[in-house]
Order: sequence, then structure tokens, then C-alpha cells
Amino acid sequence: MKKDVRSIINILDLSKEEIELLMDTADEIEKDPAAFSEVCRHKQLATLFFEPSTRTRLSFESAMLSLGGSVLGFSSANSSSASKGESVADTIEVVSNYADIIAMRHPREGAAYVASLHSNVPVVNAGDGGHFHPTQTMADLLTIRRKKGRIGDITVGICGDLKYGRTVHSLIDALQRYEGIRYVLISPEELRLPEYMIEKLASEGAEYTETRDLETAIPDLDVLYMTRIQKERFLDEAEYERLKNSYVLTEEKLDAAKPDLCIMHPLPRVNEISVRVDEDERACYFYQTYCGKQMRMALIMYLLGLTKEDERAHRPAGKVPAKMLEGSARCANPACISVTEQELPQSFEAVDEAAGLYRCVYCDEIIKIK
Amino acid sequence: MKKDVRSIINILDLSKEEIELLMDTADEIEKDPAAFSEVCRHKQLATLFFEPSTRTRLSFESAMLSLGGSVLGFSSANSSSASKGESVADTIEVVSNYADIIAMRHPREGAAYVASLHSNVPVVNAGDGGHFHPTQTMADLLTIRRKKGRIGDITVGICGDLKYGRTVHSLIDALQRYEGIRYVLISPEELRLPEYMIEKLASEGAEYTETRDLETAIPDLDVLYMTRIQKERFLDEAEYERLKNSYVLTEEKLDAAKPDLCIMHPLPRVNEISVRVDEDERACYFYQTYCGKQMRMALIMYLLGLTKEDERAHRPAGKVPAKMLEGSARCANPACISVTEQELPQSFEAVDEAAGLYRCVYCDEIIKIK
Amino acid sequence: MKKDVRSIINILDLSKEEIELLMDTADEIEKDPAAFSEVCRHKQLATLFFEPSTRTRLSFESAMLSLGGSVLGFSSANSSSASKGESVADTIEVVSNYADIIAMRHPREGAAYVASLHSNVPVVNAGDGGHFHPTQTMADLLTIRRKKGRIGDITVGICGDLKYGRTVHSLIDALQRYEGIRYVLISPEELRLPEYMIEKLASEGAEYTETRDLETAIPDLDVLYMTRIQKERFLDEAEYERLKNSYVLTEEKLDAAKPDLCIMHPLPRVNEISVRVDEDERACYFYQTYCGKQMRMALIMYLLGLTKEDERAHRPAGKVPAKMLEGSARCANPACISVTEQELPQSFEAVDEAAGLYRCVYCDEIIKIK
Repeated sequence: MKKDVRSIINILDLSKEEIELLMDTADEIEKDPAAFSEVCRHKQLATLFFEPSTRTRLSFESAMLSLGGSVLGFSSANSSSASKGESVADTIEVVSNYADIIAMRHPREGAAYVASLHSNVPVVNAGDGGHFHPTQTMADLLTIRRKKGRIGDITVGICGDLKYGRTVHSLIDALQRYEGIRYVLISPEELRLPEYMIEKLASEGAEYTETRDLETAIPDLDVLYMTRIQKERFLDEAEYERLKNSYVLTEEKLDAAKPDLCIMHPLPRVNEISVRVDEDERACYFYQTYCGKQMRMALIMYLLGLTKEDERAHRPAGKVPAKMLEGSARCANPACISVTEQELPQSFEAVDEAAGLYRCVYCDEIIKIK
Repeated sequence: MKKDVRSIINILDLSKEEIELLMDTADEIEKDPAAFSEVCRHKQLATLFFEPSTRTRLSFESAMLSLGGSVLGFSSANSSSASKGESVADTIEVVSNYADIIAMRHPREGAAYVASLHSNVPVVNAGDGGHFHPTQTMADLLTIRRKKGRIGDITVGICGDLKYGRTVHSLIDALQRYEGIRYVLISPEELRLPEYMIEKLASEGAEYTETRDLETAIPDLDVLYMTRIQKERFLDEAEYERLKNSYVLTEEKLDAAKPDLCIMHPLPRVNEISVRVDEDERACYFYQTYCGKQMRMALIMYLLGLTKEDERAHRPAGKVPAKMLEGSARCANPACISVTEQELPQSFEAVDEAAGLYRCVYCDEIIKIK
Repeated sequence: MKKDVRSIINILDLSKEEIELLMDTADEIEKDPAAFSEVCRHKQLATLFFEPSTRTRLSFESAMLSLGGSVLGFSSANSSSASKGESVADTIEVVSNYADIIAMRHPREGAAYVASLHSNVPVVNAGDGGHFHPTQTMADLLTIRRKKGRIGDITVGICGDLKYGRTVHSLIDALQRYEGIRYVLISPEELRLPEYMIEKLASEGAEYTETRDLETAIPDLDVLYMTRIQKERFLDEAEYERLKNSYVLTEEKLDAAKPDLCIMHPLPRVNEISVRVDEDERACYFYQTYCGKQMRMALIMYLLGLTKEDERAHRPAGKVPAKMLEGSARCANPACISVTEQELPQSFEAVDEAAGLYRCVYCDEIIKIK
């Protein structure tokens, strides 16, 4: 980073203590929003959305406005200079001369990280392709803490597309810092949690089970996190048609659920939760967006240094710089920002040098060098 | 509605007394705008425009900013999650967690009503297809009151497309609450005011005449409300070509008009009023937009409860719940929101049960059940 | 103009004294931004961008927000009523009832001038096709003054497309008001500065040289203003391919440059300056955007009359009205706003009546009448 500014690209860029502090701040905001209504006066948030995401953008904007700050930006690449071929780096060099903090969404993986390298002000990743979306996970954690009274010692069902769903992976990464989380992983065979994540759960001693069946899994759950199954993920359309209804949450399937089950969904929902479930008190997916706004308020304040100094929690220790790869290796992920960004050097750090495994610093793709 | 919040979908959702009160507030705003410049401090307006309408959107936004509030939203469906298939209901469930009031425009009829059913905050219909656009009518009424000094006892010419023009229908609905309105309905045969509206005028004892000819109608008028005639409305293009110039307002046609004629148009104008008329003091169509902003300011304040309690006017009496239709009837209007909104129940209330006439609660289409 | 309001369409609409005053204000803003953070409280800027230009739009918006004002507008014609065929004139008639000042970008030449004719509030041209973009030139001048300590007595290299680049022409117009500017004009033969501008430089006694070669020109320069060479400008693609690299600024080419060279670019950059140059302290192109925001802040304050009266500099003398052309002449520029704007009268003023030369008042195209 150019200056000593703090950007949040991945949920793990925040320590567990910092996330706890942010959740405490969110609770204070809920109790007395008026006390925060001028905290960001004269501060500007730029929302740079290279692809549309209404809910996320409006949540950031409303958060900043509720803090007394102001907002500028764009909501799709059409209305930005990106259509003239300007690089992410140049856009950020310019915008960080205008705004005090940036929330950015981009279709390419690693784009927010590239932005943070060129920014004079904090960058918050509001989604970089299928990669990270840390403020969604922050909203999820606050929802669980408020609804269950704690984050530890709960059974969390995660249902749907566990293979590609970035919110699922981030949520598990974040939950793994807490004690006593039991996972029930509910998905079709094709969309199981990736092997490397299963292995990680196992190596960390997590309690987990995998199942294909939502209905039988429901009674044990304290939290049920639903996600969308996209037709495009299936090679065989008939298989998709056969399966899709078993992963739709209906009133009937909820009959056997606990009375205090917390039903979550990152939204937008298409049809994976029946609208009849909305009336059920256990439906928390709209409440999640309410929590999300308050977490974004807390994060904006924190990154702008507008939290009392003695309240600042311990940052995650800076990583020990890994050995970087020299040479002409190229990232194999076609969605990586390094494919499109002008003159961006390919850059890899060693994960397991002996085995020849390196990680793309932008999109985290693992490549193997013989 | 979810909570006891007041939404404005149709001009008739406001009582005559309420409209008078709003016009009084607009007059106070005009006299002393500074007195209102902080009234909505810390309040947020969401402008959710699922289709573009610059003037209307900017009018709402400028109104809120002039009250010291702030604004967030989107200006077309492209830059919203709607392109991912999210329903209106879900969008509103989320946004009403962010904002204090919503102004919404949508191409489908009944969309704003559906929104009001899912909102925790007031929804103002800023146009739902060809259906309603109440704040346009509010602007029209204020323009007439200011220019003529009263709303009653005037001759109002309405020219152009009287068949499909929603602003025309709403204006007549609103004017019918006043005494002594004489209507001169000027249109081609194909675009006459619909028969049911003519019958309503007759049954309410209104004075009206119909004519095909603008030029001969002009001398009697106190108000001339022009609207656009769209080529697409004609089956026969030759007929359109033959007619179109007779419904264009020119300087020449104005020679015989009263010196204090008030010329109105809901805008955008294409060519139905010559730009040379703009210089004429009787041209009030840009002034209408000035009035529109002030009425929107008054309405936002009113719906947010920021008007003194003792000034609150009598609300229209809640409708006596009509008998609802049970069964599998479907709305016949292809533009109805019930056609596209996910899992939205078809819903009809009896208009004339004996005759088998029912009204779609979303778009007001009348269906007949045998 | 309708009222006595001041619009800025061309950099020459500001006197040299006014520009100096604006630069002084920008310096004061830099020294103490907090002193200006409430100057435009309760004022609204409308940004009407009929074509996208992120940097320019965000710069204006951030400028207004940093002055405590607020912002509304649109970022592309898609999300505006322009798509319904509304004229620029009508859009401005309406918006100038909402906002206190307008910044407008439009693809057609002369559009901002037409806007100023219909506005009750100041209009700032934020780019009208390939015609004018005065606030870019203001940013350029401030950058030079700050980096060189003065505007006079410097050698300015201008490289790239000198034929079509509007920023280049405006910059030369503005610099010609200062003493001791030496120009080095660096371009391919096809993209030389237009003959009429060369003649003007010569007639005004300016010192200038033309060259095809960037590398040999560099050592003498105090300022190097780079612009983009667009492939589309070449009839012969092979010629483009042969030339393009010689006009790309690289670290190597900078070896022979002065240690205090000021490297500028109006942005967006595609590849005409290597990103490796960004690290060089002489790279000032991102700093230009920083200056641009401050100049826009100064200009907004000035046009809104929020500068102390005794600080107001001498305006350029009103032009002596030229003889206007009567008759049916038509502007020959296909990009002129008079081609598309509804009922806009063709309008020309005499440049050299004897020779039959007339200037289109909208786009400045010279036509010859026999």
C-alpha cells in the first residue's frame, strides 16, 4: 500500500478481536443511532461498482449517510471510464484523491487487492468476482450473535452451492475462529464443499457432517444458511431438475425445525426459499441486511480512525513475507485481475516451496511449478 | 402494509383536505425555503427507479436535498439487482431497512402497491407503468391554484391522448373533487377519453364537451393541458400523419386564447408544443416542474410526520373491505405486476358481485367472472 | 442567457485575472480545507452527464461535497429522459428549477452553450464532444503553477494527437495569455497542430518548434503534456503500428529529462505512459486530478457568488456583437448540437464578412458563404 492505510479485502484481514469490537459498535449504533449521526461529517465514501449490486451498494451508501458523511461513485461499468479501457489502478489513483474511503465491487478476482495497492485511502472489498466479500460475512456474524446470543457452541447448517459460494467459504473461515461450531454441509454431490476446505476443517478438529438431504438435516440446526443453486453449475440439466426442489426451503420442511432456528440467506433470493417462509419468525434473511448496514457503519468509522483510540483491537499480525516466485509463471485463473489489468506484474508467493506450490497474490489461485 | 405506515400509490389516497394542506405547505416553502432547509436532517430518501425518468427522479431528489435530507438509490434496472431476477418485494424488504422513505418507479402496473405491502417505511408511487403517478397530479393542482388563484370554477381543456394518458385520468379524478370545473376534451376519435370515464363525469353531473378540434376550442379555456400523441397508438399511419399537426400547439393557435390562459404539459414534450410558445407568458409547463418539487417537499415532510400534528388533515376514510374473490381467476392485464412478481397471489375485490365484476387489487383491471 | 447568470463554456470565458483568482482560492483550499467545508451548505449541484466520464463527474461531485453542498444528476444518457427524445433545452429548463448550478457533459459540440441559453443557473461545460472542456484546462494551469512556481517563462512540450485533442487546443489558448511560453509540438505528421492554430501562434509572436520525435525533444522541456494517439485517427493501420511506440513515454526516454520536469496527461491513459513512470517523482498526472478538484471547488464558489465581492476579478469584456448571418445557411459539422436539437435555429456570426467567413455560434465551425 502506498501510505499506511488499512484496507479490508478478506474477512481474515480483521482479527477476531477487531470483529468483536465492530459487533460491539454495531450494537451501540442500534441502541442509539442519533449518537452516530454526525461522526463522519465532511467525509466522503466512493462506491465504485464495476458491476451492479444494488443491495450491497445501497447498504454502504446508507451506512455512510447515517454517519453524516456523503457519497459519490458509480453503479455499473457502463457509466464509468472503465468502458474507455482505464485500468483499475488508474481509477483508484484518481478517486483516492477525491474520497476518504472506497467501497469497490469488480467482476475480476483480486481487483480490490490491486485497488488497495494504489490507494491513499482505505479500500473495502464489496465483492471481487467469486473471491471475497468480507462485509457480507460481517453481517452474517452479527446476525448469528444477535439471534443466538453467542457465536460459539451452535450447529450451523449450510445448504445449497457449497462449491462455488464465496459467502459460504468466508463464513466458514470466520466461524472457525470460534469454539464449538458444528457444521452440517447440505448440498448435491456436484456442489460439495471443496476438498481443500473439508481437509482444513478436519485438520482443525472441527465437527462436521455432510449430507445430500435438507429435510432430515433441519431438526438439529440452530442456524440454517441457505444459498442459491444455479442451473449453470450442472452439466446435466435433467439432474438439476431432479434435485432443485429438495434444496428449496418451504414451510413444510420447517415443521420439524427448532423454534429458535435462525434462517439466513445472503440474497438475492430467487426461489430457494418460498416467500411463505418470510412470515415465519425464524426468517432472518432480511434482518441480515439490517445487521449488514450497522456493521458497515462500524467498519467505516473504524477504518477512518473515528473510534476511540483505546478501543482499537489487536490487528492481525502482519504476515511474515513469504518467498516470492521469480520468473515467468502466469496465473491459471481466467477470472484473475492479472489477466486484464494493464502491465500488472504476475506475482506469486510460496505456499509450499518444496512441493512447488505458489499462490497468486491477487486471486489466491494455487499454481504448481515443476 | 407491514407497519402502520402511509404510502401514496394513487392521488385518491390523499383526501382533498390533505391535498389542500400540502399545497399550503408548498406555498410556505416558496415564501421561505430556508425555514425548511433542515427539516429532514438525518433522513434518507431511496429513489428506486426500475426504469429511467430523469425529471421525476431529480425532482424527488432535489426536494429531499432541499429539506436537508440525503438520497440514495438507482436510476435504471440495469444498475440494480432486478437484473438478477430479484422480486420487487424482496428489494423493498431490504431497502426499507436502509431508508426512511421510498420513491419508486416501475414499468409494471401495481408494482408500487406491491412495494407498499412489503415496506416498513412510506412508499410514494413515482409512476407504475400506465397506471398512476400521483405526484404529477399534485404538481398540476398546485400550478392551477397558483396561476388561477383557485381550483374551482374554471374551464379546463385537455388535449391529445385522452385514452391512454395516465396523467389525464388522474387529473380528472382529482379535479372532480372541486366545484365548477368545465371540461373540454380535445382528441382524435381514436384517443377519446375512455367510455367509463365519460360515464363517470356524466353521473357526477360534470359539465363537459368533446371536440376533435384544438383551434376552435382554445378561446374558452382558462387552462389548456397538452399531452403527447404517440404514433404507436394509431393502427393507420396515414391517419396519424393527417392528424398530428392539428394537435400541435403553436403561436398562431394561441392568438385567440385568453390573456391569462395557463398552458400545461406533463413533459417530456417532443413536438406537441412549438418551442416558440416557450417565450409566451402563458406557458406554464416548466413552472409545473417548479411546483412539482415543492409539492414533493411537502409530501415527504408529511409522510415522515414532520408536519405539526394539529395541522394534519383528515385522511380519506379507510375503504370498507370489499368481498374478495376466491378461486383461480387471473388478471387479464399483461402489464400487471402479478404476471412477473414471484409467488404473488392473484387478488381481486368485488366491484359488482351480482354482475360478476371484480377489480385486480394491483392494477385495477376489471375482470368478469361468470 | 435567461437571467444574468454566468456560465463557463470555454476557458476563454474567464479572464486571466479571474483564473489567477481561482488559482489563489485553490491554494487557500489546499492550505485549510476545513475553512471551506460549509461554504455551499444548502446548495445543489446537478451533474448532467449525457455520456459517461467518471473522473470528471466524480471530481465535480467531490468538489461540491467538500464545500458542504449536495449533488444530484445522471451519469449516462441511458438513465436520463434523453432516451425519450427530450431536447437539451427542455432538460435544462427543468433542472435549473431544481439545482443551483449545473455541470454538463454531452457528446455534441455546442450542447453546453445551448444549455446556458436555457438555464436560470450557471452552467459549467464538462466537455461537449471534441469541442471544449474548460475545467480540465484550469486543472492543467494550476498544476503548472504549483509545480513550476509560475506559468510564464517555461518550455512546454505537447505530445501526441495535437490535431483532434481538445485539451491541447484549450491549454494553448490559455497559455497564450502568459509571457515566455516556448512550445515544442511533438506529433506524427498526420496529427500535427491544425494550421489555423500554428498561424495564430505565429501571429502572436509565440516561440514554437515542431518535431516528430519525442526522445530528442525531452531534454529541453520544463513541462511535458502527453496525450493519447487513437488508432482510429490513422487511415493506414501499418503507419499507426510503426509510429505508436515512439510516442509512448517510458522510463528510458526520461533518462535525459530535466530533474524537475513536470509530466502531465489529461487521463484516462491507455498505454501512452508506461505504468513504471508512475513511480517517478516527475509524474504529475494523478496530481493533476488533485488540482482539478480544487479548481472546481473554487469555480463553483465563484459562480455561486460565494467569494468576497472585493475579491472578484475583472470579467472578460463582453464581446462586441458581431454581424449575424441571415438566411438558410447550415452548419457543416456533423457533431454540432444544431443537427439534433429540436427547432434550434441555425445561427452564425461574421468572422470576416468580406471573405464570407462565418462561425457557427454553437460549435465554432467556420463556414464560407459565397
